[in-house]
Amino acid sequence: MSKPVKIIMIEDDEGHARLIERNIRRSGVNNEIMPFTNGTDAVSYLFGSDGTGIDILRRVKEDKYLKCAPVVVLTTTDDSQEIKRCYELGCNVYITKPVNYESFANAIRQLGLFFSVIQVPQAAT
Amino acid sequence: MSKPVKIIMIEDDEGHARLIERNIRRSGVNNEIMPFTNGTDAVSYLFGSDGTGIDILRRVKEDKYLKCAPVVVLTTTDDSQEIKRCYELGCNVYITKPVNYESFANAIRQLGLFFSVIQVPQAAT
Repeated sequence: MSKPVKIIMIEDDEGHARLIERNIRRSGVNNEIMPFTNGTDAVSYLFGSDGTGIDILRRVKEDKYLKCAPVVVLTTTDDSQEIKRCYELGCNVYITKPVNYESFANAIRQLGLFFSVIQVPQAAT
Repeated sequence: MSKPVKIIMIEDDEGHARLIERNIRRSGVNNEIMPFTNGTDAVSYLFGSDGTGIDILRRVKEDKYLKCAPVVVLTTTDDSQEIKRCYELGCNVYITKPVNYESFANAIRQLGLFFSVIQVPQAAT
């Protein structure tokens, strides 16, 4: 037996979202509608939560103006494949979020100290 | 003179976001921090608002499981290049949102009627 079809709706305007749902119902479609107000949540639903950050990293590093901007990936994952993938895509610094509060705070202070010494390219004018 | 460097922070956990900001400040970094709780908003800030939907379309159509799912792009844009690009990326139906309420409602009802007649592939099990 085939599973019922779900409709994924991504609409940031709540009025539009309601209008869309109401008029879809009016035309007799009763399938479940999953509403999302932003693409990130929809992407997490469709692909799992990890994909979104990677996608933004890829886009920034593919952009001719933005690719020079240093990117720090700060995540709970310490999976070596994931770390490798981020560096391959051009991430500048990858940090695993320590689970312990004090260690997390300390890691961020170190990151701040790092920010305070690195040079960044001039923005395009 | 070079522009001051802005720090773009994307962090969905508000507690983490505060911790990150506080500890960056503690290490003496005073640059403006732009906080975003989701990637969509950050991508809109970095690339402009139009890019996000296109990106999700691309990802869905590149995914071996999801690419069979019909995708309807419903947008305010009626730019012919944009329409062409969406179809090239595999969008199934492109609809420009009518600005008039009644026309919008009617377009969605038509979309619903369309949903009620199309077949979709079975989900992978």
